[in-house]
Amino acid sequence: MLEKVDLNKIMDREDYKKEFDNLSIELGALQREARDLKLPIIIVFDGFEAAGKGTLINKLMLPLDPRGYDVIKRFECPSETDNRPYFYKFWKTIPKRGDISIVNESWYKALLSDRVLKKTSPEIVEYLFDEILSFEGQLVADGYLIVKFFLYISEEEQKDRLKKLKKNKDESWRVTDDVLKLHKKYKKFLDAAETVFEKTDTAFAPWTIIEATDKRYATIKIFKTLIEAIKFKIKAIKEKEELPSFENFYPVNELSSLSKIDLNKSLTYEEYIEKLHPLQREIHDLQYRLWKERVPVIVAFEGWDAAGKGGSIKRLTEAMDPRGYTVIPIGAPNEYELAHHYLWRFWQNVPEKGNIAIFDRTWYGRVLVERVEKLCKDFDWQRAYGEIKQMEKQFTNFGIVLLKFWLHIDKKTQLERFEEREKNPFKHWKITEDDWRNRSKWDDYLPAVEEMLIRTSTAEAPWNIIEANDKYFARIKVLETFVNKIKEKLN
Amino acid sequence: MLEKVDLNKIMDREDYKKEFDNLSIELGALQREARDLKLPIIIVFDGFEAAGKGTLINKLMLPLDPRGYDVIKRFECPSETDNRPYFYKFWKTIPKRGDISIVNESWYKALLSDRVLKKTSPEIVEYLFDEILSFEGQLVADGYLIVKFFLYISEEEQKDRLKKLKKNKDESWRVTDDVLKLHKKYKKFLDAAETVFEKTDTAFAPWTIIEATDKRYATIKIFKTLIEAIKFKIKAIKEKEELPSFENFYPVNELSSLSKIDLNKSLTYEEYIEKLHPLQREIHDLQYRLWKERVPVIVAFEGWDAAGKGGSIKRLTEAMDPRGYTVIPIGAPNEYELAHHYLWRFWQNVPEKGNIAIFDRTWYGRVLVERVEKLCKDFDWQRAYGEIKQMEKQFTNFGIVLLKFWLHIDKKTQLERFEEREKNPFKHWKITEDDWRNRSKWDDYLPAVEEMLIRTSTAEAPWNIIEANDKYFARIKVLETFVNKIKEKLN
Repeated sequence: MLEKVDLNKIMDREDYKKEFDNLSIELGALQREARDLKLPIIIVFDGFEAAGKGTLINKLMLPLDPRGYDVIKRFECPSETDNRPYFYKFWKTIPKRGDISIVNESWYKALLSDRVLKKTSPEIVEYLFDEILSFEGQLVADGYLIVKFFLYISEEEQKDRLKKLKKNKDESWRVTDDVLKLHKKYKKFLDAAETVFEKTDTAFAPWTIIEATDKRYATIKIFKTLIEAIKFKIKAIKEKEELPSFENFYPVNELSSLSKIDLNKSLTYEEYIEKLHPLQREIHDLQYRLWKERVPVIVAFEGWDAAGKGGSIKRLTEAMDPRGYTVIPIGAPNEYELAHHYLWRFWQNVPEKGNIAIFDRTWYGRVLVERVEKLCKDFDWQRAYGEIKQMEKQFTNFGIVLLKFWLHIDKKTQLERFEEREKNPFKHWKITEDDWRNRSKWDDYLPAVEEMLIRTSTAEAPWNIIEANDKYFARIKVLETFVNKIKEKLN
Repeated sequence: MLEKVDLNKIMDREDYKKEFDNLSIELGALQREARDLKLPIIIVFDGFEAAGKGTLINKLMLPLDPRGYDVIKRFECPSETDNRPYFYKFWKTIPKRGDISIVNESWYKALLSDRVLKKTSPEIVEYLFDEILSFEGQLVADGYLIVKFFLYISEEEQKDRLKKLKKNKDESWRVTDDVLKLHKKYKKFLDAAETVFEKTDTAFAPWTIIEATDKRYATIKIFKTLIEAIKFKIKAIKEKEELPSFENFYPVNELSSLSKIDLNKSLTYEEYIEKLHPLQREIHDLQYRLWKERVPVIVAFEGWDAAGKGGSIKRLTEAMDPRGYTVIPIGAPNEYELAHHYLWRFWQNVPEKGNIAIFDRTWYGRVLVERVEKLCKDFDWQRAYGEIKQMEKQFTNFGIVLLKFWLHIDKKTQLERFEEREKNPFKHWKITEDDWRNRSKWDDYLPAVEEMLIRTSTAEAPWNIIEANDKYFARIKVLETFVNKIKEKLN
């Protein structure tokens, strides 16, 4: 594909000046229209060393209102991001609806320069392409516009530019060993790029190759491409074209066996205490081993209101070192979270290697409360099963131990607990109008729960259903499941 | 002070059990009340190694609703924070109103363990105490409650505990070389602690020494102290006691010479272009030198609406590498920003070493729009002069070059530009109702501006007043001032 590109295209100063001013005005206007339409835009710049990324990005910024865009630079903190799944840092920087992110060092780095420099391990390459497709696919499905530019110059041109840079005392520092290596491996980089186009030049996020020999020509092509893309998207929004889901949704007939679960399982207080303390001591030790062996863990709690999530979490963390775990309570998203993709706030809380993140309610809200309360379109929650599995796959790919608990009780038990809370002055605050409203929708929730359990139980991250009518039994089963799963991983 | 402390206090299991349960219930209730009152709470834990920080913090967390607190752990990213003023990372983690932060590795580390281990350079120690006082003072003045615990054990006790830890195969790793060094230097640590108490045991943020030999005793004392502190603060809030400002405010009589400024200075287009391009080339080179020599820069733009801030910023950045600068447009704070101290959002944007942060409007909004529009109490903006100077001092202490511009035009020029914007279809969006409303308050803004210029022009960070009736002249003066100031710093 690339060899067919004509790298000799140029543009003279006069044509450039004229075009640039008009395109700038048009782009500025489009940015404001996109903001009013709450259209989030991601612009990716990648390509050969010395192809002029910096200059071209700066040109692009000039007509833009700084109130609406952000340039994603070299990520400050490898020590932080290297300890988390690859896409953590990119999720962190997606723009909120109406804003623009210009990504200078994108997720393609690992498959271009880093791959050529052998900084990307082969086993990552294997699944990185899938992760890129799901990342871009999820954003586009959520209404994001992604425009990807690849800056292309010839080997000769690169050679000349590096020579010039080396001569300039203020810029010579930019010609690092890596840059020189990449120049020597120009052909390898070209091959890597071909592979990238082959696998990631999708309909929902296509690549545009920019002939970057002549800066003026490149600038104008970037402006025109971007303007066309934004116009196209705005048109689609105004015509309310719905984007196709990339997981074909099919209704689940065979329901899970929640009904068949034996909720009578129970423990006496004595049995409970007898099991509790040894388990907590074991958890205390396991936490250190997780920390020492740098294994990250996510524990996800879902369940009916008053099923005992809080109590289980308390018993789980009681013997842990607070420096190694975090409890993340998930409530209704705030204004700022709503302005992002719904998975964004969960990516923020991915634990670093050796740490434990405990979610009190999770991303499954999308297919539970948001589905039942109609807080999102059918299209959105139907798509979510696939998106959630993709996200969890990225977690487990990275080596995160992902434990998912569904705390199950029956309607009668919930009623008793609600009433007990209302009576007890110290628990009264725990019960709200919402709880009663949710309860009234029990029968709408049930099929949503069962569908969730079926669709999202995977080999790497199965659901653990906890019989929770008896709190003692439930807590011990949660702790035992945790201990066994962690031991399994550590041995 | 410390030698007088009795470290033999203990508590038996029964008393403990009883007290703990009651105090837990009380603390839980207080947390909810504090949240309703939007009271932000910061709890600092410091003290000797092996004094039981982790365990005691965990005990404190158990009765708390996780929806309302966060444990600030060892900061993940030294590479990021070491490149910024010391308090950057702490500002990042202050709780929003109604929340609690439990700080595990606090700002006192630099003056305790790090100082004993000679990791803190003497010249930092000199001004660190001032920075701590202004940090805590600013937060308390803004309604934060700060509770500081120092966990105290004897040299003997520490010795025994470290021995036990070493024996335990799962915990021996915690006994690092630093920990052993700190044990050997027990006396030095004690002296450092004495100095810390001497200088930072203030009325607005006092220290509580916790005899930590007996965990039960320590837990109860921590709970009781915290409960008393929160109750006291809640009482104060309900009685609307206003906290004393720590800068005595005096009105400024002698006004600045804004009126005497010659706004007729101007340049022809030819003169402008002739000066512009060489200046931009110089800025391009200076940016690389700043980057190479790791010098951080903050450029702060204030001025009347339509004074030409945007145009100056554009000319300033046109020749810069986007990877090295950021433009931070400051508008009305959003809901989330309002939930923090007003300086919080600016601290978020402090540039790392070698980078340039350009603020389009700044923290001076506190003493301009917020004062004139009565968006905060007189007490708040009056206090702000001192707070802003303290913040800027921390910037310059760290080596940040801080450039402050006031772009000055007269009322007539503003009117012409407003009208021009309304006529011009490409600038129309730039003019809003707000602009006209602000303009009508010109005469209220003038004294606020003059007072700001007088009160906040310091030796390290003076105001540069730019005569901006003529755009060409203004832009060139901004660029020249920038170039000269940076050269001065680099040579």
